Amino acid sequence: MTDPTGTTDTTTTVDERKGVSRRRLFGAVGAGAALAGAGALVGRATAAEPPFSHADVVAFRGEHQAGVVTPAQDRMHFVAFDVTTKSREELEALLKKWTVMAERMTAGEEATPDGAIGDGLYVPPSDTGEALGLAASQLTLTIGFGPSLFDDRFGFASKKPAALEELPHFRADNLDPARSGGDIAIQACANDPQVAVHAIRNLARVAFGTASVRWSQLGFGRTSSTSTTQDTPRNLFGFKDGTNNIKAEETDVVDENVWVAYGDDQPWMAGGTYLVARRIRMLIEQWDRTVLGEQERVIGRSKGSGAPLSGKAEFDELDLDSKKGHDPVIDVDAHVRLASAQELGGIQILRRGYNFTDGSDGFGHLDAGLFFIAYCRNPQEQFVPMQLNLSRNDAMNEYIQHVGSALFVCPPGLAEGQYWGQGLFT
Amino acid sequence: MTDPTGTTDTTTTVDERKGVSRRRLFGAVGAGAALAGAGALVGRATAAEPPFSHADVVAFRGEHQAGVVTPAQDRMHFVAFDVTTKSREELEALLKKWTVMAERMTAGEEATPDGAIGDGLYVPPSDTGEALGLAASQLTLTIGFGPSLFDDRFGFASKKPAALEELPHFRADNLDPARSGGDIAIQACANDPQVAVHAIRNLARVAFGTASVRWSQLGFGRTSSTSTTQDTPRNLFGFKDGTNNIKAEETDVVDENVWVAYGDDQPWMAGGTYLVARRIRMLIEQWDRTVLGEQERVIGRSKGSGAPLSGKAEFDELDLDSKKGHDPVIDVDAHVRLASAQELGGIQILRRGYNFTDGSDGFGHLDAGLFFIAYCRNPQEQFVPMQLNLSRNDAMNEYIQHVGSALFVCPPGLAEGQYWGQGLFT
Ligand code: HEM
Ligand code: HEM
Repeated sequence: MTDPTGTTDTTTTVDERKGVSRRRLFGAVGAGAALAGAGALVGRATAAEPPFSHADVVAFRGEHQAGVVTPAQDRMHFVAFDVTTKSREELEALLKKWTVMAERMTAGEEATPDGAIGDGLYVPPSDTGEALGLAASQLTLTIGFGPSLFDDRFGFASKKPAALEELPHFRADNLDPARSGGDIAIQACANDPQVAVHAIRNLARVAFGTASVRWSQLGFGRTSSTSTTQDTPRNLFGFKDGTNNIKAEETDVVDENVWVAYGDDQPWMAGGTYLVARRIRMLIEQWDRTVLGEQERVIGRSKGSGAPLSGKAEFDELDLDSKKGHDPVIDVDAHVRLASAQELGGIQILRRGYNFTDGSDGFGHLDAGLFFIAYCRNPQEQFVPMQLNLSRNDAMNEYIQHVGSALFVCPPGLAEGQYWGQGLFT
Repeated sequence: MTDPTGTTDTTTTVDERKGVSRRRLFGAVGAGAALAGAGALVGRATAAEPPFSHADVVAFRGEHQAGVVTPAQDRMHFVAFDVTTKSREELEALLKKWTVMAERMTAGEEATPDGAIGDGLYVPPSDTGEALGLAASQLTLTIGFGPSLFDDRFGFASKKPAALEELPHFRADNLDPARSGGDIAIQACANDPQVAVHAIRNLARVAFGTASVRWSQLGFGRTSSTSTTQDTPRNLFGFKDGTNNIKAEETDVVDENVWVAYGDDQPWMAGGTYLVARRIRMLIEQWDRTVLGEQERVIGRSKGSGAPLSGKAEFDELDLDSKKGHDPVIDVDAHVRLASAQELGGIQILRRGYNFTDGSDGFGHLDAGLFFIAYCRNPQEQFVPMQLNLSRNDAMNEYIQHVGSALFVCPPGLAEGQYWGQGLFT
């Protein structure tokens, strides 16, 4: 974001103070970006603009929302809101305001035209300022609506998609209501965490009186690759994660499994998707006491290379039929077997989770785990059967506990002039 | 850290599986680094080593511990331990083990020679693996000992420095014991948070039975510059933070204010320092409702440029006598006035804090703030009078609350062959 009064220019004009010129630059980048479709990277800012080290801008508008198949950024801040107003008009006004702010921030601008200092001394600044001088950092902001938003408060009942049913209870779920649910979710992903936190904070701030933060989660490192251009990162069990994920480049697989098609359900959400969030505590002390062979049996892959136990290299296909004597090489309870398309009649989801650590648990351990995010075209037909299978049989269950859960429907991307959630109001 | 079985080499030998060659490379870098003194940057890994994007290695050994005047890295994971054993020998053994692991990890190696996969299938891996493939990322690990470690458990009473007195209660302190104190602290700073988290986790892990995690804190963004080579970052009030900090390059100021000198106190800690940690919740909603002029009055600096209100450019000196009519330009209660060396008879500290956000507070707000870390030569003569002045008079107090507090003495740096805390045992 622009730093209107950098330390070097002590003789700035008012226009420079407001950073107008740099903002114009960004405006242009944003416009070009829109042509490429939301989620597309539109190149780095020029090297002549000094503080812009993570300067990639991801287009905000397009057929689909950004932040789904966009190559997973390194850091995340996720927030779920409760809507506190009963007024449909106030909610609509907030969504309009959010859209304008979100588009600006993803372009590397301040949340508002006047920003942190441009309004003058006599009003509260309209941007909180901590991202001044920081680049866009591939910030994406992705919105979703929870089942509770479609109750009788706002007249959205007739707009509710059939697949937006609350998730069932899964075996061993130990969900904290204070970390579950929510009327509206916003996922902020960026390569600079300060940019992601700044975005959520400014959106939360203008919601005052209309919506309030129900829960939020910081993810310090991505645990998934969502593009063939990315390395596979590691989760806190030390295993590569995202190897057999859907990749953005597989557009047919994405269309089949991620984006809601016309005719699937409510017309307003064609081109949208569903977001499932699960806060999964990892019992890392138990895991760390387990021998390597057992860890690899539980996952079904080799820890070093990430190769399936039935293969040699990371991207070798799972061979679920491969045997060593009478025993399957990939265990019957191995995580990758139970979650695989082969086992589940072709079901696939797009995973986009983040590692977290939130202090300690009061028992001498770190409170660490995986903030699991999945996108899919129909959660009832994809996430639910997959998680039913995992919750019943997964050998990994000894080492994890699901402690938070939420489901949201994500509307499609926006054309010029449209605002977040417009389909609900028209 | 080395990725012993990268996806591309499917025909690795056992030695390659263990990543011996890459480790040797790092060994060499580490050795060169030692000559430059702990805390010195020793250049990037060659571009030929692909995953090493944040590959700077900070030397582990030297006259002083690294992580104090080392240019502040972007991310931090801080942990405080309770020692759970009563055995002096067990504690010494842990400190020795930690030293070996810490030296390895700061060099970009795994925590142990065998690492995440080198021990074979039949034992729990001796490294947890999530940093495989990640660079050293300027990781520094800095150890400190709390006043409680010098009670009657281990016979250290006669080694206790006089300045290691528990901090007094400051006005409006609202400290949570579960986020305060601790026998031992380790500060992990790195440019990749996964590297910092991995280091703390592996140190915590081998402490099992000897020490357990009392509290920990993740900091997502540095709020201080500690070197003239760094830009000044912004804290969550949106202001530049660290402008008038002690900078590593001012070696006289550092010697005067940060490092304990021979003759100051206990001989074992000459070359060491003291670490004060304060978890400071920022009431960002209140702050965000405040007009810009009031925000600038509270801090005493301009929000855009960071210049003192008495000056024009960020690094202009504070002019505390400057007047506008009869009123001081820098308010009598302004934070920078009350914390300034001018006001406090020359007192200075080295600030090295991090922004945090830990979910929400249950009242619709983000739980966000500043994890304040200060290093000084004598906390009773530097931090205490400064914080007494601030806690009584600082206009900022309306917008913050101190919720955690801890004090540690940090031993000096290590020569070859020495281990953390050796001075306590000899
Ligand atoms: C802390 C919890 C979890 C951990 C540590 C974990 C870890 C892993 C790892 C290491 C892999 C292998 C690499 C890869 O292909 O990405 C994997 C694969 C997979 N996981 Fe998970 N996972 C967790 C939870 C879940 C959940 C809750 C689901 C969905 C309900 C899920 C669905 C999948 C799928 C679909 C695959 C790919 C399977 C295939 O090869 O076809 N995972 N997971
Ligand atoms: C959330 C709490 C705090 C915030 C937001 C904050 C913010 C700031 C800001 C914006 C500056 C001006 C820029 C600079 O020179 O770095 C500053 C200066 C300073 N702060 Fe703080 N601060 C906080 C707490 C503290 C505490 C607890 C202490 C020490 C007890 C402290 C000591 C100082 C010092 C010594 C300076 C430099 C003053 C000078 O110009 O000589 N600050 N702080």
